[in-house]
Amino acid sequence: MTLIDGKAIAQQVRNEVREQVAEWVAAGHDAPGLATVLVGDDAASAVYVGNKQKACAEVAIQGFDHRLPVDATEDDVKRLLHELNADPKVSGILLQLPPPKHLDGPKLTEEIAPGKDVDGLTPISTGLLHKNLPGLRPCTPLGCMELLKRHDVDLQGAEAVVVGRSDLVGKPISALLLQANATVTTAHSRTRDLDEVCRRADVLVAAVGVAHLIKGDWVKEGAAVIDVGMNRLDGKLTGDVEFDSAVERAGLITPVPGGVGPLTVAMLLRNTLQAAKDAA
Amino acid sequence: MTLIDGKAIAQQVRNEVREQVAEWVAAGHDAPGLATVLVGDDAASAVYVGNKQKACAEVAIQGFDHRLPVDATEDDVKRLLHELNADPKVSGILLQLPPPKHLDGPKLTEEIAPGKDVDGLTPISTGLLHKNLPGLRPCTPLGCMELLKRHDVDLQGAEAVVVGRSDLVGKPISALLLQANATVTTAHSRTRDLDEVCRRADVLVAAVGVAHLIKGDWVKEGAAVIDVGMNRLDGKLTGDVEFDSAVERAGLITPVPGGVGPLTVAMLLRNTLQAAKDAA
Repeated sequence: MTLIDGKAIAQQVRNEVREQVAEWVAAGHDAPGLATVLVGDDAASAVYVGNKQKACAEVAIQGFDHRLPVDATEDDVKRLLHELNADPKVSGILLQLPPPKHLDGPKLTEEIAPGKDVDGLTPISTGLLHKNLPGLRPCTPLGCMELLKRHDVDLQGAEAVVVGRSDLVGKPISALLLQANATVTTAHSRTRDLDEVCRRADVLVAAVGVAHLIKGDWVKEGAAVIDVGMNRLDGKLTGDVEFDSAVERAGLITPVPGGVGPLTVAMLLRNTLQAAKDAA
Repeated sequence: MTLIDGKAIAQQVRNEVREQVAEWVAAGHDAPGLATVLVGDDAASAVYVGNKQKACAEVAIQGFDHRLPVDATEDDVKRLLHELNADPKVSGILLQLPPPKHLDGPKLTEEIAPGKDVDGLTPISTGLLHKNLPGLRPCTPLGCMELLKRHDVDLQGAEAVVVGRSDLVGKPISALLLQANATVTTAHSRTRDLDEVCRRADVLVAAVGVAHLIKGDWVKEGAAVIDVGMNRLDGKLTGDVEFDSAVERAGLITPVPGGVGPLTVAMLLRNTLQAAKDAA
């Protein structure tokens, strides 16, 4: 059994992005720029945005840290997003979700120009993903694929089971696995005999948000297990997979924390660089 | 075993659309309008467009039959599509594919305004489908769902297997089945043990375009089998499923021809009415 070291892989990706940004700038281009937009003063959201800005600085991506007051109107947010759409120094735009309750986050996200949608969550980016057309893909699903790739998991014809069908994770991962030529089953809360469905997986992705839903004996011997879950149980962060028993059967498995999590910001940086290159 | 009568169900749908169009017009609205755009003089395409126009007339949808010469430029097609986008009498626009070789059909389709994309094939419509947001869905996948619905097939938690992953059929059907709460497996040419994968299906959708690829003994006893294939074999139209043997095991099965085929135009009419209502 091999434990997937998400932190180390994320660091590799970040190093690569730093080198590629340096090459890009050395070739005479402006540094890529990431604008984050935070509405209100939610503490957790502020930490996430701070981490993203810090990560930008480390790879020499320009960070633009925009804050709007908690009572900002829909029009205020739209106006800012449109300004950022028009600003050539801004390669990518990230509206930190969720915004205060009086605002519709996903709807506002649609104001972001497709070429700057580095979170990859707008309908147009979703459409480009599912149609296999060039575009920006969502960061966490990209991170899962990166983990599988760095461990040389053969996806061609593999049975992949994705438990969860969120717009953010489950459905885009299913799409990426399908593009990698896996046979993909998307399972969810209404799935009958979820244990049996999981047992057929050569690659098992858990993205439901229910602590320890997936038991160790649901894991096929030798399977690659990617746990996207981030649940708090008895004061500790834990995944959707019962790690202690799953580890006995998996060939490859992500811990929680330290598995998929660190990849999200790394892929955001990579997306920002890609957006800059695509716009050039 | 019940044979699905696609012709009869399509006729029911067309009757319903006709009644709903009449109610819509009686309520003081303009009749919905469908603009078809045919570039060049391909005989088969001309027949398809003719059928669509005839179907419109039967349900009192206004038909606008636009023809461009075989040497029409990309700009010519775009200009026409933009005019139709702006024309309030046109509720839906269908660019007949494929256009002559010098034109990029899918790319041109992207010029159609999302609210008028009655074929449901643009990236934005694809994104709305996969994100489960309101929008126009592609006609053939909608037709498959309609057949299952009219036969009261219980999709909740059912194991659905879709063989094929085209943008036109396989992927959108997988998405619609997932929204109906089926556990959905998308299989394809790289799938290992396709026979075993098919055998687990309560609902089996074949959309590959290979005559008789799916053998009768791959069908689970009592399964609902939807065959989207339209292949020519020994001069006869035939599906992707070996019908004569599958019929012994299926609980419900579409013939080819006369199964899914007739639904496509019926769903196009329904989409056109929906587009008119959404635009009002």
